[in-house]
Amino acid sequence: MNSIKGIAASSGIAIAKAYKLEVPELTFDKKNIENPEAEIERLDDALSVSKQELEIIKENARKSLGDEHAEIFSAHLLVLSDPEMINPIKDKIKSENVNAEAALDETANMFIDMFKNMDNEYMRERAADIQDVTKRVMAHLLKVTFPDPALIDEEVVIVAEDLTPSDTAQLNKQFVKGFTTNIGGRTSHSAIMARSLEIPAVVGTKNITNTAEKDTLVIVDGIDGEVIVDPDEKQLAAYKQKQADFEEQKQEWAKLKDEPTKTADGEHVELVANIGTPDDVAGVVNNGGEGVGLYRTEFLYMGKSELPTEEEQYEAYKSVLEQMGEKPVVVRTLDIGGDKELSYLDLPKELNPFLGFRAIRLCLERDDIFRTQLRALLRASTSGNLKIMFPMIATLDEFRQAKAILLEEKENLTNAGTEVSDDIEIGIMVEIPSTAVIARQFAKEVDFFSIGTNDLIQYTMAADRMNERVSYLYQPYNPSILNLVNNVIEAAHDEGKWAGMCGEMAGDSIAIPILLGLGLDEFSMSATSILPARTQIKDLSKQELASFKDKLLSMNTAEEVEQFIREKTNQ
Amino acid sequence: MNSIKGIAASSGIAIAKAYKLEVPELTFDKKNIENPEAEIERLDDALSVSKQELEIIKENARKSLGDEHAEIFSAHLLVLSDPEMINPIKDKIKSENVNAEAALDETANMFIDMFKNMDNEYMRERAADIQDVTKRVMAHLLKVTFPDPALIDEEVVIVAEDLTPSDTAQLNKQFVKGFTTNIGGRTSHSAIMARSLEIPAVVGTKNITNTAEKDTLVIVDGIDGEVIVDPDEKQLAAYKQKQADFEEQKQEWAKLKDEPTKTADGEHVELVANIGTPDDVAGVVNNGGEGVGLYRTEFLYMGKSELPTEEEQYEAYKSVLEQMGEKPVVVRTLDIGGDKELSYLDLPKELNPFLGFRAIRLCLERDDIFRTQLRALLRASTSGNLKIMFPMIATLDEFRQAKAILLEEKENLTNAGTEVSDDIEIGIMVEIPSTAVIARQFAKEVDFFSIGTNDLIQYTMAADRMNERVSYLYQPYNPSILNLVNNVIEAAHDEGKWAGMCGEMAGDSIAIPILLGLGLDEFSMSATSILPARTQIKDLSKQELASFKDKLLSMNTAEEVEQFIREKTNQ
Repeated sequence: MNSIKGIAASSGIAIAKAYKLEVPELTFDKKNIENPEAEIERLDDALSVSKQELEIIKENARKSLGDEHAEIFSAHLLVLSDPEMINPIKDKIKSENVNAEAALDETANMFIDMFKNMDNEYMRERAADIQDVTKRVMAHLLKVTFPDPALIDEEVVIVAEDLTPSDTAQLNKQFVKGFTTNIGGRTSHSAIMARSLEIPAVVGTKNITNTAEKDTLVIVDGIDGEVIVDPDEKQLAAYKQKQADFEEQKQEWAKLKDEPTKTADGEHVELVANIGTPDDVAGVVNNGGEGVGLYRTEFLYMGKSELPTEEEQYEAYKSVLEQMGEKPVVVRTLDIGGDKELSYLDLPKELNPFLGFRAIRLCLERDDIFRTQLRALLRASTSGNLKIMFPMIATLDEFRQAKAILLEEKENLTNAGTEVSDDIEIGIMVEIPSTAVIARQFAKEVDFFSIGTNDLIQYTMAADRMNERVSYLYQPYNPSILNLVNNVIEAAHDEGKWAGMCGEMAGDSIAIPILLGLGLDEFSMSATSILPARTQIKDLSKQELASFKDKLLSMNTAEEVEQFIREKTNQ
Repeated sequence: MNSIKGIAASSGIAIAKAYKLEVPELTFDKKNIENPEAEIERLDDALSVSKQELEIIKENARKSLGDEHAEIFSAHLLVLSDPEMINPIKDKIKSENVNAEAALDETANMFIDMFKNMDNEYMRERAADIQDVTKRVMAHLLKVTFPDPALIDEEVVIVAEDLTPSDTAQLNKQFVKGFTTNIGGRTSHSAIMARSLEIPAVVGTKNITNTAEKDTLVIVDGIDGEVIVDPDEKQLAAYKQKQADFEEQKQEWAKLKDEPTKTADGEHVELVANIGTPDDVAGVVNNGGEGVGLYRTEFLYMGKSELPTEEEQYEAYKSVLEQMGEKPVVVRTLDIGGDKELSYLDLPKELNPFLGFRAIRLCLERDDIFRTQLRALLRASTSGNLKIMFPMIATLDEFRQAKAILLEEKENLTNAGTEVSDDIEIGIMVEIPSTAVIARQFAKEVDFFSIGTNDLIQYTMAADRMNERVSYLYQPYNPSILNLVNNVIEAAHDEGKWAGMCGEMAGDSIAIPILLGLGLDEFSMSATSILPARTQIKDLSKQELASFKDKLLSMNTAEEVEQFIREKTNQ
């Protein structure tokens, strides 16, 4: 069998030869050399080629993913130009008469060890930067080809153990037709990036790197989560057909781009998108998004050496709001901590970071950071249709505190003569069970709910969604999740408020009929999921789905729910 | 102010001089010596005194806490007798002509480094053992007094940064009148041990070690969570009175020892105890427990180098069941993982262990371990009134699987001619939100529920109960928790089943009236909390409390709930 099962992470079919993203072995012998000047010249050449490459990578990342994502490469370039790093290498060559490889290796390791052992996340990240760029320079010294996804100039499918954020930042859609990895899941960073780049991807194949050799033809089926290695002619023809069908389907979807989202029985729901940066707005518009349901503001804070200024933030928020015009933009305030660290904040290591000091918990303590963000948002509020929501709210107290700070900053701005919009809705993410359970109490005080299913599911099932040993418990269709979601929607409607969802579940074709039946008002998803979802919803009757509600809520297991929905909706 | 606020961890008043449990500085100079034989003799003396001390400590631990707890000291003694450890020290003295301190230090460090770096939890624990005993031997070589709580022979209050399990295992109630620590909370290991030993304790004082000098008089008020350092005469008199009042109250409580637990309006509820080992049963009986509501079986598996045999387990279960006679004993099957590791299972390190591979998740995968335990339980079932419950059940599937394995083993035993009781109730811990939310579905299949509030609260609030930065979110009275608890109780009663609670909350004087009102059937707590709880319940009207139910469930915050209950019950 040349077919390997994995997790469908991003839709579409890619057919191209394999490009193995593996760091080659960089072994060398330490040698005594006679001509130190020649060695230094070799080093300078390797440094200079490496810099040129990094400039290209950085520029590509900027173009395909935006300024935020390109920042990490500035850090890498800095290392290569830092005399504190480079001079000791050259000194070593001269004073010890050793070859450039040995001098580079020993000097770099000294710095890496030094930084690594510092009790400071920022410094430890510097160690990782040095490690990365040293490998590149070493490869050039050894004349070994270093895989650079950004330098790819022919059509390929990337095959790798995993893709780091910096790998993904380098992918050029023109040549990288798809990717497939050994590890990862639907909600892993690389999967989310693949959907945002609209590159077909299959992750979690366990051993694709052992099966697909360099330059073998590979088919990535991101629709059904399969990878075909070295297909025979019949397979190739079949998948070319599937690819054509998918393209045709995309054309079909595109027709609904400027249509409102309506069910078969004429009910309107809102299909909006999750974004990370102002650059993502183009994708929302192209895919017919009716707004932004989740603007994750963390990217503004990441890959930096210090907090973003109020002005930087203001520009970003204003840009998103202006681009979206009258359409709603729901901005989530800073959700950092947990699996998302900010090196320069030097947060303490925690035994269970997902149950730790993160998001609103951090913002209420570090209200200097929180107030800067709120001011930037309030100032930008006149540029569009802004809604603000707080992440990880567990108690009504926390919401009251956060809202009070927001209103205080609003008053300060107004008093200082700055114009601020007067109808900013203030809502919360419902991603902690406690909040879903007593949604009724919250509904009296918030303007809206947005259910964050990724976290809500992991807390409700007490199963880390990143931990493969308990991944069987990550069950979006578990009746307990449906009951909590229903409770949130009912509570909102009883108080005349609206309820949305911005987790992965909102774009899932099994979940959509369930959520329609429960009465969800707003579905926020990857931009590329919007048109397929609109197409699906067009054929669904909300009234019929609502009639299944009690039955679904009293079911015993996630499997029962899925099977029932598959039957009722012919999936 | 000589009064320091902390967390009341174990009731009562202790008045005695401070005993500071601090490891002294053990510095020495490395010296060349002329007479290696004399140095070796010094080492042998230090080793021999250390061994004598450890034998005493072990014996004390065995007496006060039982065999299980004494096992760690066998490991320590083993190190001191191990020629692989001792001979290299002596060789070093002879071959390098260095003093015993240097030889001990260098040899021990070599082993510690070696074990520490092994990718194996069991070996890393050996490193900790070596570190512990080396300190003791070094102290004797240097003629420095090493604090040994087990050697205390006058009345003291222990003052420490924290108490390790091995420290607590050494406490002799006769002399240790109380203890107080800088860190820890009500559910930390040392707090639970203090309650089980009935020693007054105040934890989490932040800086008591800086305030209370050696031999200063200290008052530990484990009732109100306060420590008074160097009290004046007035304070001393007041606390002596409080101590006498508490003793009197205990006499009062003791009168209810053989009474059933009845509310003022004549409703019966069951007050049962949490235990860890067969030795704990005496405390249950002495405190008038109506049964065992939670027998934590983990102690059987801990502090060992391999899994306990079926026979060992059988003996332990049988002993508990026989001691309890006709009274019910609810045994929880193995709950390992999370914060409780088993060195010899070599479980993978997890990013969020509390959301990881633990308890029933592990038992369903490692069903060899699970089946051994179930067989031991089934065989012991004829010795008393056994009920079995599974921990960390998140889905109905898991319960069905676990129950199927249990029934399979039962059939195997019966077929082999072994007698097994035919009315063993099979229930689950409700400690994961998903299970509490759809308790109605579970209630059709389980025989009973036991709500584990420590975990249920931490998952529902998404806050690690061990993480001080988010400890404000550990809110037993949060209306979301009350709604979940109510849902579980209602679901049970609708199906004619019973619902108990075995978390810390069940013994809390604010929670008891709430839980009575919600209709909880069984309250499982530290044995020493039973008589105070029975006394409190005697004066409460269940009917009146039930009338507050709707009001409590729709409250907004934990503070509102607490204030309301305090007012209604004069607390």
